Amino acid sequence: MAAPSPGYSVTFRLSAPSGYSITSEIVSQAGGAGAQITAVDVVESHHDRMVIDLTANTSSPEHAEEVGRALETIDGVAVEHASDRTFLIHLGGKLEVVPKLELRNRDDLSRAYTPGVARVSKAIAEDRSLARNLTVKRNTIAVVSDGSAVLGLGNIGPEGALPVMEGKAALFKQFADVDAWPVCLDTQDSDEIVRIVKAIAPVYGGVNLEDIAAPRCFEIEARLREELDIPVFHDDQHGTAIVVLAALTNALRLVGKRIGDIRVAISGVGAAGNAIIQLLQASGVTHIVAAGRGGIVARDHEHTDAHRKQIAEGTNPDNITGTLSDAVRGADVFIGVSAPDVLTEEDVAQMADRAIVFALANPDPEIDPALAARHAAVVATGRSDYPNQINNVLAFPGVFRGLLDAGVSDVTNEMLVAAARAISENVSDEQLNSSYIIPSVFDGDVARDVADAIVEVAGRAARTHEPATV
Amino acid sequence: MAAPSPGYSVTFRLSAPSGYSITSEIVSQAGGAGAQITAVDVVESHHDRMVIDLTANTSSPEHAEEVGRALETIDGVAVEHASDRTFLIHLGGKLEVVPKLELRNRDDLSRAYTPGVARVSKAIAEDRSLARNLTVKRNTIAVVSDGSAVLGLGNIGPEGALPVMEGKAALFKQFADVDAWPVCLDTQDSDEIVRIVKAIAPVYGGVNLEDIAAPRCFEIEARLREELDIPVFHDDQHGTAIVVLAALTNALRLVGKRIGDIRVAISGVGAAGNAIIQLLQASGVTHIVAAGRGGIVARDHEHTDAHRKQIAEGTNPDNITGTLSDAVRGADVFIGVSAPDVLTEEDVAQMADRAIVFALANPDPEIDPALAARHAAVVATGRSDYPNQINNVLAFPGVFRGLLDAGVSDVTNEMLVAAARAISENVSDEQLNSSYIIPSVFDGDVARDVADAIVEVAGRAARTHEPATV
Repeated sequence: MAAPSPGYSVTFRLSAPSGYSITSEIVSQAGGAGAQITAVDVVESHHDRMVIDLTANTSSPEHAEEVGRALETIDGVAVEHASDRTFLIHLGGKLEVVPKLELRNRDDLSRAYTPGVARVSKAIAEDRSLARNLTVKRNTIAVVSDGSAVLGLGNIGPEGALPVMEGKAALFKQFADVDAWPVCLDTQDSDEIVRIVKAIAPVYGGVNLEDIAAPRCFEIEARLREELDIPVFHDDQHGTAIVVLAALTNALRLVGKRIGDIRVAISGVGAAGNAIIQLLQASGVTHIVAAGRGGIVARDHEHTDAHRKQIAEGTNPDNITGTLSDAVRGADVFIGVSAPDVLTEEDVAQMADRAIVFALANPDPEIDPALAARHAAVVATGRSDYPNQINNVLAFPGVFRGLLDAGVSDVTNEMLVAAARAISENVSDEQLNSSYIIPSVFDGDVARDVADAIVEVAGRAARTHEPATV
Repeated sequence: MAAPSPGYSVTFRLSAPSGYSITSEIVSQAGGAGAQITAVDVVESHHDRMVIDLTANTSSPEHAEEVGRALETIDGVAVEHASDRTFLIHLGGKLEVVPKLELRNRDDLSRAYTPGVARVSKAIAEDRSLARNLTVKRNTIAVVSDGSAVLGLGNIGPEGALPVMEGKAALFKQFADVDAWPVCLDTQDSDEIVRIVKAIAPVYGGVNLEDIAAPRCFEIEARLREELDIPVFHDDQHGTAIVVLAALTNALRLVGKRIGDIRVAISGVGAAGNAIIQLLQASGVTHIVAAGRGGIVARDHEHTDAHRKQIAEGTNPDNITGTLSDAVRGADVFIGVSAPDVLTEEDVAQMADRAIVFALANPDPEIDPALAARHAAVVATGRSDYPNQINNVLAFPGVFRGLLDAGVSDVTNEMLVAAARAISENVSDEQLNSSYIIPSVFDGDVARDVADAIVEVAGRAARTHEPATV
């Protein structure tokens, strides 16, 4: 059974007989059933009866039910109600649209709305670029999904995607003061998605694409980057690639290898795999072998998909063929963005000395990290309950903070590399060890550092393009 | 020259010689130039020099410049900077997207985002109707415009429309706690707009169409109402019609006429005119004559536009022809939603006894209200600087509060009539007089009363459609 998690936190409202030892009995019974108790509150106390709220992390909805049944075995105790706290905090959604100024009277109204607003509208109509200063466009991005590849849940549609996009928007605001709005589209047609995002773009200073299935995500991103004058970033690709590069940089510091010398095996050639390969190559990695469901991607195969073809041409210098095991043999680094349990302990044992294993499939990694750690020097996953969580939250808020602050229209590889460096440098030499190659998402400085790094790159690029002065 | 307005409020930063009388001199000079002073602040004071901020309402940007020049005629005074306060409050936009819960630690994150959110997403994917409870859809509407008919400014495009839609969203939140998000579309193709609004609809519990030019607005609204399962409301039509009906109801109370007996002349057959005619007919008005730019709409004309044809068939019972003057002669009520100065004092003098004149063109009404008041018993305009302002803000926040609370998918005429009644009933018999036929937008109860009225109608409709029980 999985460990209890706050994602499955339940509050049991219990009716119980009054008595000196009843609370401790309840706690002990719930603990015995495997629950992790986080709070006990006496809500009401009467002469002969009490109402008690017991809040506990469980492992699953089924486990929560078991805990409830265990509690009812105590004499006189009844579960009146069990509330799933994860569902509770989702009631009514996770976002609010709030005016930045209060409209208390007619004067406020005549400045923020009619008649005053007409002058602002007219000024923007005469010079569209003023929208960047005088509207929400300055600080607002769209979080766009078609619901086709949501978390590990797959194609669950736009309504199902919405709680994830709301959560993402909340993280943007919390970590980088970026206003982000969920745009969940009831279409999975690439042309249509491109048309819609272009049509809604006047309101936004950037577009964060999210959970759109490969290979459609590549075309959508490429076309939007081409046709829009605001930055477009597909988080599943570039956010993941940034954090992988940051973690890899620190892991290499730890094992004493240079990025130009390493051999990397990658499992998964979807959105994340593609972007990771590109960013590693932009950072100097020359030896990459990638494997998909059909085995190692090699040049002599027939590749109908343009992206698969690009991988085949740009990686696998020795043009080896075979399975993932063949790709991993002798490699310094394994990066998995694929599926549970595709990597065996034997595979890891066959890697080079002081190997690095990033098993990022979520929620179940490519290999149990405990098994991998028997042979590898550094192990990272996508999970919060193991050390070294590769979490995009480290990247995307700061990236968009930087893009908006710099007012740029394009995202460059140089910006992504700079963002990765800013994250990796948040781990000092004193902090660096095999269980801490990447900062925590609650490290207060990461988003600011990432933003600064992007603004710096953007400024350098702008200066380079300035005409030389005499 | 128009009266000074807070819509043209300017803060002058002045450098001035120190001295006992300098502030009063500045105030007197600005007042002499026609400015309405609202604040004087000494920002810095030195031995020989002071920095003073003078804030004043002016009549126009040109007038503000005149005031600045007048200030500089004072010996030693220089205007260092003049800030337009209307533009200042628009800097960075007027809305924020704020998480309803703070994400302080990993536990919060695992409930609001991964892994907890996956269970919520999965539940919604299995039953889409849960999105109404577990996402922002429950309380959020889209404020959709293509920027084709913004205020009196005309076709200024989506960026120009954005400050207006942000202001509207702020009013929704302030007056009715409805979360509203601006959707400004970079297309004016009706098919495309319908497709886009349908595609973005999963996130929203309602659609408020805004400032879309007639006749496209009719088709877009009709098709969206047909194809979406959330309520669609074009504020320029139905919001205006509701407030007009509310004001008319009270004006009739005042002059002692019954709605079934009155003769109404309408100037303007665009979005607002059409909706007003429909709602008046739904409320029992039988005698309406409407005039557009080409004169009275009559049955014997060739009408290519379906809406014009509908007006021709449903109004003008005596099938008269001619100009607006002919329509107005003998009428009890004039309602103008057209253009400045199309009604003469002579026209009003030819109306029936105890006539009612609503001259709603903005900012310049169909007739100067002071002229109209010489002959009419009740005069209303769309402006805030005259009595009886017909302002949509009285309707739209409460309407959507009610629609969301009732969870209905359709807006009915009965709801619009009930909303109008709720607004008119906010003026008590004691309050009612010819300068107070409609409550102020800052009357705290209006939005709640409108919402309750809509919920009541929706509830009655739902009960009517319930199968009879044995």
